[in-house]
Amino acid sequence: MNKSYSELVTLLQEVTNLQRAAAVLRWDQSTYMPPGGATARSRQLATLQQLAQEKFTDRRIGRLLDALEPYAESLDHDSVEASLIRHTRRNYDRALKVPPEFLGQFTAHASNTFQKWTVARPADDFKAVQPDLEKMLDYCRELADFFPGYAHIADPLIAYNDYGMTVSTIRSLFAELRGQLVPLVNQITSQPALDDRVLKRHYPEQDQLSFSDMLVKDLGYDFTRGRSDLTHHPFETSFSIGDVRITTRVNENYLGDCLFSMMHEAGHAMYEQGISMGLEGIPLARGTSSGVHESQSRLWENLVGRSMGFWRHYYPKLQAAFPDQLADTDLEAFYRAINKVERSLIRTEADEVTYNLHVMIRFDLELALLEGELAVSDLPESWNQRYEQDLGISPPDDRDGVLQDIHWYGMRIGGLFQGYTLGNILGAQFYQRALLDRPQIPEEIQNGEFNTLREWLIENIYQHGSKFTTGELVERVTGGAISIDPYIHYLESKYGALYTL
Amino acid sequence: MNKSYSELVTLLQEVTNLQRAAAVLRWDQSTYMPPGGATARSRQLATLQQLAQEKFTDRRIGRLLDALEPYAESLDHDSVEASLIRHTRRNYDRALKVPPEFLGQFTAHASNTFQKWTVARPADDFKAVQPDLEKMLDYCRELADFFPGYAHIADPLIAYNDYGMTVSTIRSLFAELRGQLVPLVNQITSQPALDDRVLKRHYPEQDQLSFSDMLVKDLGYDFTRGRSDLTHHPFETSFSIGDVRITTRVNENYLGDCLFSMMHEAGHAMYEQGISMGLEGIPLARGTSSGVHESQSRLWENLVGRSMGFWRHYYPKLQAAFPDQLADTDLEAFYRAINKVERSLIRTEADEVTYNLHVMIRFDLELALLEGELAVSDLPESWNQRYEQDLGISPPDDRDGVLQDIHWYGMRIGGLFQGYTLGNILGAQFYQRALLDRPQIPEEIQNGEFNTLREWLIENIYQHGSKFTTGELVERVTGGAISIDPYIHYLESKYGALYTL
Repeated sequence: MNKSYSELVTLLQEVTNLQRAAAVLRWDQSTYMPPGGATARSRQLATLQQLAQEKFTDRRIGRLLDALEPYAESLDHDSVEASLIRHTRRNYDRALKVPPEFLGQFTAHASNTFQKWTVARPADDFKAVQPDLEKMLDYCRELADFFPGYAHIADPLIAYNDYGMTVSTIRSLFAELRGQLVPLVNQITSQPALDDRVLKRHYPEQDQLSFSDMLVKDLGYDFTRGRSDLTHHPFETSFSIGDVRITTRVNENYLGDCLFSMMHEAGHAMYEQGISMGLEGIPLARGTSSGVHESQSRLWENLVGRSMGFWRHYYPKLQAAFPDQLADTDLEAFYRAINKVERSLIRTEADEVTYNLHVMIRFDLELALLEGELAVSDLPESWNQRYEQDLGISPPDDRDGVLQDIHWYGMRIGGLFQGYTLGNILGAQFYQRALLDRPQIPEEIQNGEFNTLREWLIENIYQHGSKFTTGELVERVTGGAISIDPYIHYLESKYGALYTL
Repeated sequence: MNKSYSELVTLLQEVTNLQRAAAVLRWDQSTYMPPGGATARSRQLATLQQLAQEKFTDRRIGRLLDALEPYAESLDHDSVEASLIRHTRRNYDRALKVPPEFLGQFTAHASNTFQKWTVARPADDFKAVQPDLEKMLDYCRELADFFPGYAHIADPLIAYNDYGMTVSTIRSLFAELRGQLVPLVNQITSQPALDDRVLKRHYPEQDQLSFSDMLVKDLGYDFTRGRSDLTHHPFETSFSIGDVRITTRVNENYLGDCLFSMMHEAGHAMYEQGISMGLEGIPLARGTSSGVHESQSRLWENLVGRSMGFWRHYYPKLQAAFPDQLADTDLEAFYRAINKVERSLIRTEADEVTYNLHVMIRFDLELALLEGELAVSDLPESWNQRYEQDLGISPPDDRDGVLQDIHWYGMRIGGLFQGYTLGNILGAQFYQRALLDRPQIPEEIQNGEFNTLREWLIENIYQHGSKFTTGELVERVTGGAISIDPYIHYLESKYGALYTL
């Protein structure tokens, strides 16, 4: 093996080990850490993150990348070596552009704003965080400006999570999608609402957890290389290809929460568990982007987990697990309950059809903020107007309006929301391809078998980790570019039948 | 504040954060990590430990210590500043003596030997690990030789865990103790055995855990700054003063295991939780030595937890928790059951009286190994002879003989065992002092109240963390040197009464 390459790998393994150690500390912080541990834990995390950043931006990595240029040209584009060099070059160059002092200040301000938001949201007090949010916006604009030459100020921010995607591409995709969704939602909501009261009966926590664990195990989530725990907000996190964990929460008076969040997180987790062991321990051992990651969580949660075929197999089992609660409800009624569409205020609780409208509102508003077209002080009003316009509903307060998501307050303004909708689009696009390649998949799902689908996903998507960008991967898998057609087709046929449109 | 001092603190905080992060990863490894995570976890831990070592032996620390010499002389010996400089000087100088390459090879060999031991012990195959154990011995002798000028080759090894204690001191203490214990064990075991069959009834896991949690909470273990989990071997670990965790195990057919291991680990944990917040985040925020740490676990487990006064309060509660199992057993019979003395083979299961004989056998044998007086090939025979001689019992195999403890195989030969018996001695010595200072303690214990005792321990021992060495601390607390008299007095009076000697 090339000596510079193996030196590069050694340095990157150290960075990876530090990042994964930080992930263990964050997982513990959300699951089992006692309250008294919080202060020291923040300091421990700061040390790990700072060291990982220092080690990744070490000039030795730059020199090795330079030395490796001729070697990289001799390699097959798809090889691990070429992919790692390409991936590292891109992220190294990007990382060097942002001064560590700026990053430190920004992180500290975000953490501070997050703390204030945790108070401001329950108090419905947007004004209390407005100055901090204005400063967040300044920081994010400044962050973007470290990447001169962008076509849109949000492009460098989007590149953090969805490298290769741009405002220009996303805007036209989203415009097209919105053009289809708004009328679809109008059509659906002009019909009588579906009845989901059955989901709101009492379902004991332990029974929900056992059933959900069984479900995701059947899907193919490997518990010998993972585990599920309870947290306030569900998430997936990965410490290595052999240790990919998911978390969930349980609402005893709503069956949908634990069940679908488990399938969602298991989708993320199966992606990470399916990465080739040849990428273990290096930065390629991760899903490639927010959009592709979300395509997998949504594919398993919705395209599989909310389908009639799936419940044909699992509904009798669910009835056996909850005989008292489900005795009076047949498969068809249950299927309708879990697919109820309604105009609602909260993104994370939204159904499949309206969900993207929530996302696109945020995407458009953050672009307007970054462009300087919208002032932070006018944000609540613009938020409410867009909800009225797109969803036909207006938040009664900012708590369930502009204050509802943590992203802008605790993380970043710009580049965090597009992945949710890209995921829905890509999930449908990948799934359509899988069905073309393996037509037996729907029948297998009706029998509670998922191996063919999962193996197709491993072969075409999961194994590659971050070797390819979103665009490259879509091209490889579908032979074309990202397209909303499969997704629209899926929604129209599924909801057309459900609502007899 | 002195500028060099605050720079030193910053560097040491970073080292501490890395060490504590590693502790979180080890805790997770023992509690919740799925099997698939093992390989990557070892690599992650190696990175953290190596970075902590590199950062601690950074020449900047040496230069700051040099620069701080005049400042340190101006400080009160007991101040945090003076203590931190003293403590760092000592450990820095010691750390610099050992080349990192040696440490890496030694650690790798120990880890490898540990793996082989996990197979050799169940197979009762000492020969399978003998060559590796011989190499462990070579490494440990070499390690000692990095500290030239020692009086005994084990002294530098003892200094890792019980700084300030030497073979010379420990040997004379242990000789004196053995001189008292061997006849005491003979006297006791010539009497009819106590009946502990009541402990061997069926006690459901969850009930044992609930009762033990309640007990250690009463003792003063703070669950808002800690938690208890299940592991194969019980331990205590600390991530900060606000996050000190304990683990336990449950044998449903033996009540003593969970109950007393929880009190033992809670003793360790209350020490760490009781450290002054002024030491948070720096290397002084730890118990000062193995001996003093073990004095606290044994004090709470035995001097408190196996006393008649304690069970006068708690036995009715225990009977309420296990009515079927304990209905026919009165307080006196229970007290006798939990204090049964017998000649046995396994150190970790030994009673209070014989326990030290197990420890001293190991201590003497490892000295003989290090001195070159005993060959590894002769170790099993010497082990069995000493068990016959001191405990009047001979192991039927090596599994329950020389292979029983992990220490020599997975950690180090030399300097790891003395702390267990020093702990028993010091525990009694500290407790005697506490009772002189606060005569109300025994009566409070009979009422299930532990505040006076715990506050005395915090004031005199816990708050100081590692500010003082074992010797300094004993001198401060008792006004004299370490002495076996209080311990012998405790054993003779307790077991004299139990066995009517």
